[in-house]
Amino acid sequence: MDYVSFASDYMEGCHPAILELMRATNRDQHAGYGTDKICASARAHIQEACACPNAAVHFLAGGTQTNACVLDALLAPWEGVLAATTGHIATHEAGAIERSGHKVIELAGERGKLPADRVREAAAAWETDANHDHMVRPGVVYISQPTEYGTLYTLEELEGLRAVCDEYDMRLYVDGARLAYALACDVNDVTLSDLARLADAFYIGGTKCGALLGEAVVFPNPSTCPQFFTLTKQHGALLAKGWLLGMQFEALFCDDLYLRVGRPAIEAANAMRRAFEERGYRLMFDSPTNQVFVELDDATARSLAEHVGYSFWEKTDRGHTIVRFATSWATTQEDVATLGRLL
Amino acid sequence: MDYVSFASDYMEGCHPAILELMRATNRDQHAGYGTDKICASARAHIQEACACPNAAVHFLAGGTQTNACVLDALLAPWEGVLAATTGHIATHEAGAIERSGHKVIELAGERGKLPADRVREAAAAWETDANHDHMVRPGVVYISQPTEYGTLYTLEELEGLRAVCDEYDMRLYVDGARLAYALACDVNDVTLSDLARLADAFYIGGTKCGALLGEAVVFPNPSTCPQFFTLTKQHGALLAKGWLLGMQFEALFCDDLYLRVGRPAIEAANAMRRAFEERGYRLMFDSPTNQVFVELDDATARSLAEHVGYSFWEKTDRGHTIVRFATSWATTQEDVATLGRLL
Amino acid sequence: MDYVSFASDYMEGCHPAILELMRATNRDQHAGYGTDKICASARAHIQEACACPNAAVHFLAGGTQTNACVLDALLAPWEGVLAATTGHIATHEAGAIERSGHKVIELAGERGKLPADRVREAAAAWETDANHDHMVRPGVVYISQPTEYGTLYTLEELEGLRAVCDEYDMRLYVDGARLAYALACDVNDVTLSDLARLADAFYIGGTKCGALLGEAVVFPNPSTCPQFFTLTKQHGALLAKGWLLGMQFEALFCDDLYLRVGRPAIEAANAMRRAFEERGYRLMFDSPTNQVFVELDDATARSLAEHVGYSFWEKTDRGHTIVRFATSWATTQEDVATLGRLL
Amino acid sequence: MDYVSFASDYMEGCHPAILELMRATNRDQHAGYGTDKICASARAHIQEACACPNAAVHFLAGGTQTNACVLDALLAPWEGVLAATTGHIATHEAGAIERSGHKVIELAGERGKLPADRVREAAAAWETDANHDHMVRPGVVYISQPTEYGTLYTLEELEGLRAVCDEYDMRLYVDGARLAYALACDVNDVTLSDLARLADAFYIGGTKCGALLGEAVVFPNPSTCPQFFTLTKQHGALLAKGWLLGMQFEALFCDDLYLRVGRPAIEAANAMRRAFEERGYRLMFDSPTNQVFVELDDATARSLAEHVGYSFWEKTDRGHTIVRFATSWATTQEDVATLGRLL
Repeated sequence: MDYVSFASDYMEGCHPAILELMRATNRDQHAGYGTDKICASARAHIQEACACPNAAVHFLAGGTQTNACVLDALLAPWEGVLAATTGHIATHEAGAIERSGHKVIELAGERGKLPADRVREAAAAWETDANHDHMVRPGVVYISQPTEYGTLYTLEELEGLRAVCDEYDMRLYVDGARLAYALACDVNDVTLSDLARLADAFYIGGTKCGALLGEAVVFPNPSTCPQFFTLTKQHGALLAKGWLLGMQFEALFCDDLYLRVGRPAIEAANAMRRAFEERGYRLMFDSPTNQVFVELDDATARSLAEHVGYSFWEKTDRGHTIVRFATSWATTQEDVATLGRLL
Repeated sequence: MDYVSFASDYMEGCHPAILELMRATNRDQHAGYGTDKICASARAHIQEACACPNAAVHFLAGGTQTNACVLDALLAPWEGVLAATTGHIATHEAGAIERSGHKVIELAGERGKLPADRVREAAAAWETDANHDHMVRPGVVYISQPTEYGTLYTLEELEGLRAVCDEYDMRLYVDGARLAYALACDVNDVTLSDLARLADAFYIGGTKCGALLGEAVVFPNPSTCPQFFTLTKQHGALLAKGWLLGMQFEALFCDDLYLRVGRPAIEAANAMRRAFEERGYRLMFDSPTNQVFVELDDATARSLAEHVGYSFWEKTDRGHTIVRFATSWATTQEDVATLGRLL
Repeated sequence: MDYVSFASDYMEGCHPAILELMRATNRDQHAGYGTDKICASARAHIQEACACPNAAVHFLAGGTQTNACVLDALLAPWEGVLAATTGHIATHEAGAIERSGHKVIELAGERGKLPADRVREAAAAWETDANHDHMVRPGVVYISQPTEYGTLYTLEELEGLRAVCDEYDMRLYVDGARLAYALACDVNDVTLSDLARLADAFYIGGTKCGALLGEAVVFPNPSTCPQFFTLTKQHGALLAKGWLLGMQFEALFCDDLYLRVGRPAIEAANAMRRAFEERGYRLMFDSPTNQVFVELDDATARSLAEHVGYSFWEKTDRGHTIVRFATSWATTQEDVATLGRLL
Repeated sequence: MDYVSFASDYMEGCHPAILELMRATNRDQHAGYGTDKICASARAHIQEACACPNAAVHFLAGGTQTNACVLDALLAPWEGVLAATTGHIATHEAGAIERSGHKVIELAGERGKLPADRVREAAAAWETDANHDHMVRPGVVYISQPTEYGTLYTLEELEGLRAVCDEYDMRLYVDGARLAYALACDVNDVTLSDLARLADAFYIGGTKCGALLGEAVVFPNPSTCPQFFTLTKQHGALLAKGWLLGMQFEALFCDDLYLRVGRPAIEAANAMRRAFEERGYRLMFDSPTNQVFVELDDATARSLAEHVGYSFWEKTDRGHTIVRFATSWATTQEDVATLGRLL
């Protein structure tokens, strides 16, 4: 019997349109460090998709690198970043943010999300503390869309966070590692142009969303960090072949492919959720995107693991475990059917 | 008339063998972060090519990133790195080494190279200075092979540097961004296994040597930095799709392609050097590798620039400039002939 | 009516014995950077008091600086430090630990203390997490004796923490900013030699304990960080006039003054606690040392503030506040009587 | 026979006026962290002495710490600091500036000074380099007054440096570790108010100039770094007993003591220079301040060392050495006479 893995959404190569563009241009010569024509074209496509013609757009290679660079650009040395305890920067980036000198100030999230009220409380606590000059100032609010639990911020929730940021002179940064899966999701009501209107910076994930690799950082206001190019070089994050990254987004933003590329993953995840529910499994966190969290008893988990890849999430009690199944742009309905037959 | 660029060696995509491997495996699923089978295979090939079966091999995305990670691994916090003033880390990495806390201690080089005696002098100066506990200790010697001037260390010179390092308890690190062009060069007498025997760490350049992107770091002694994986994650240098990098080296180290991939560049550069010399131009730095430095009068430089890309290097006097022509694995003799017709 | 402040324990100058030593030697010439004879003598006294003749002893100027330097010495770049949420490094050092690259991993404390079981749980969670190479490794356990809530670890509790550290290859670091007030406290059963036996590093607080300024760092095992001198210089923490710091501890460790210098503070705090209790005030956190935490209604707090200095700690509900009264080596029973008359 | 040391200017305690103020106020209670009345008064005195009533004034403990904090405040992350190769930050601060992430860009000095033309050349070289986004931008010019060679910038030279800074959008920072010895020197024509008019930041040295310890940082424009307080805390440079530092400058700026405190050192140095010259010794660097550099043959150096302390500077040839004799506010003419009898 075949083996299919839902362990993550970065396991396959790239969308055929990208591979074809790479093949067709393989012998072409390009200027270095993102100063080439393909990057310029990709930037223009993204500015248009975000309805933000002046946005500064930079292409980096991966998520942790992007978070470290953007937060370093947005934070003063004496500032830290507010994040959910489950936020990627708080737990699974090996201290990359602290390594560049900034404290990650953790707040309890709700199914991966930071409620505006909790952020307001934290900002107000700093502001009213008589000793706050001895404390790290919260300078940025970090959220991910979708979150690490696959949940989505609504437009209203995002606007609430923006309001808190305005109130307390903080910046809002959205980690869009899996943004294509939010945009392709039926219940999503946050568009790229909403992000460009509400965030001080966000990134459009490529690595997990059909690109071979790469993330597109968007600063809606181009004066936010004029020296971001040099800052990324200092972080070791500037690729000589910047055009390779630009090419990913050139293909993904041609004919709005990025808005469609996550759709197969959502349909597969929806089918998977139905399959679990029909069989009485307990779904967790109410995730509507490409990550499906389900509680398994340990025997089922073990036997499934022989034929299907998934990720361990957390133990709930003796004998039960929450595991994650992630679909991707490359997942087929047949893959889900294979899983269904094993349940 | 056509335009051909010799501005750098990272302007084209990748060797066809790599593109084909990427195409053939595009829909395969791979484990993340370099823990996959292709990376394992590529590591084994590299260990064999280096005659160093226990070497730790890590795949990173680019040169500055690699230098920053490796030097951070090799240096104690209170140590700095000795480098030629013309060394890449000293000038063109935007302070990435200092950003991770380490001083680059510059020494005057000779045609891009650090003579062992000059290194010994610097190490001895520190050791005998009564105030040296107030000074940065030279902990690593950084060299590049070939150098930024296209010159090569001989085996004897490398052994001399190793001896100084042993004498003064320093580590030796070799930046091999263009290593394929050294290995393909007629006058070169330093092999991969020499590097593995003499250096504490070195990297085998991919980005400029036929790979789409990627550099392979080799620690001949695997206990040099057991936590290098986590360290790279902290630096934002760990790609989720590590297999993409492994795949580059899997192809480059299949049938020793890496030893041959730079040959067309060397042949093109040799032809180019002949073309310049026949016409009376003055070659500089005596570079035997893929970088050709030549002095042009400003009028020639201007008229050439309409049809040929090259890099500005430095002004020699009013009216004359040193420029660099770089060939690559993708350069053809026809490209050189085009240049020849313009001279 | 007079005003007396209990706002903190660093408000007065220094013990008369120190002032006299400074006066008597003011025109003497001393070698710089702690290489003088007074520092040597003070080191010997401290080694003796700790029953640890080989300990490395360094003198620094203040607490945050000391914590940043020692943690930088004890932690690998990819490690972080476990601390109670109320630990000084977690909240009131403006991110100094993160500034030098290390994550402070916060754990809920109990009245300021970290129970060994909670530390074990955190260490085990990291060790058993399959993704731990992507996570900051807990490398040091940070505690303070007394804690920020004035509470004390018992010898048994300290031994429990040492056992966890041994089990999980972590180091134990004790912040002794107020150590004299622990040593002078009736219920304390942890001696200097216990600290030297159980901790990998600790510091003997001077600034808050009768010295004009200064903290004495003790590494019981001198090979823990042989280059600590240079590391402190890099942190800007090496005073030219190191002998000034040595002189503080020379006086404080002459005839065991350090064991007695906190006694007046404890007696004053005990009297203050009795005064509050007799009048029905609610004491908090059960602190036996020189910090007295008491709940005041807001009207009382306001009227008291006209004549007495104290620190705001936290609001308990509308109308009530916990405040802190700190006594010091310089507090007199008359000061406490003044407070008593106002209650 | 007695032993007298001219090894440095930080070997004695403090001016009697300071000791008396410390004695008289030893039992007083002060607010912490420089928020007390003595600091406020000292700040006002310094603002007045600098004819700069709005200047921000901060008190730190030592020179390396001060340089690290101020440069971190003045530099963007991607900027470095231009300094003479002999500048204190370039050689004898153990890499403290690099430790906080910034490159020290070394320029050859002339007798310790940076000529404006050389600075202009370096700034222009960066500005006109087509690759400058890959290079550290020179953001600050660091000079010391007097320099490490005891030489002085003239007002005209300082104005020249200011002009270059204006031309290239750089800031000017003056390290005044030994500023009192410049101000007390006959040939000096740069006043405190000149420094406040021409520099973006400078510090008034205390540690080497009669204070027990401490340096007063002056930002003539208070908006240069509004969060400097928190930044110093992050660097571990904020003393709890800030009033101790304020007290030094309160005494030093009472009745302009600071302008006179270096005078005995200058007179002693002048006498020493005459003594050397009369006996045919060769003075070096033409230093007019409290540092006297003289070439000794090795036999003389050895025999002198039995009775007199001095610092080794550098070997000139086999058999000769340049050594430094430093006088201080505490040096007497009798000390110099002692030296004279030994020559």
